[in-house]
Amino acid sequence: MDYSKLDGLILAVIQDAETSEVLMVGFMNEEELALTGSSVFATLLNSTRNNRWKKTEHTVNKLAVNQISVDCDDDTVRLNMKRLSYGNMRHTDERTCFYREMNKA
Amino acid sequence: MDYSKLDGLILAVIQDAETSEVLMVGFMNEEELALTGSSVFATLLNSTRNNRWKKTEHTVNKLAVNQISVDCDDDTVRLNMKRLSYGNMRHTDERTCFYREMNKA
Repeated sequence: MDYSKLDGLILAVIQDAETSEVLMVGFMNEEELALTGSSVFATLLNSTRNNRWKKTEHTVNKLAVNQISVDCDDDTVRLNMKRLSYGNMRHTDERTCFYREMNKA
Repeated sequence: MDYSKLDGLILAVIQDAETSEVLMVGFMNEEELALTGSSVFATLLNSTRNNRWKKTEHTVNKLAVNQISVDCDDDTVRLNMKRLSYGNMRHTDERTCFYREMNKA
């Protein structure tokens, strides 16, 4: 992976493994990617980049990492994750962070 | 939208409107989001953040913006896009930038 573009971080897109719905986008450093690769849960930073580490067992209600894919220029991973329980995003109680639509001209 | 977290930029996730597959992740500023909202095509920066503007009519083979969704903390948009033609990502000629899998322990 290439951590040089974002000051030591890469992007992580979390996608529902069953519905393919995009649930959230966050940041990871090298250690967090290693933890995610060796664990059931994902470890990532909050999208502000300055917050403390969050694990998906806390920020969302139990999503297990099924598959990790890498993008073409090595600065983003896509995590396909399976809802283990209730599974809504904890901070909004919505199925996905992207629950609001913007008007399209 | 909140452009303060990433030095004037927000994240943009491009998702296939039919299959829900995540195709790529990029960056946008306020002007690019406005252009995307008022156009068939998306305007976004390359993921290096330093490259010149790229439009999806060039970087991918004709993807039209169907729907724009905003995440819970206003720093990321999700673009649901429809393939108008061949539709592979132009730089790799793959259906998605995420065509490589990483080993999961």
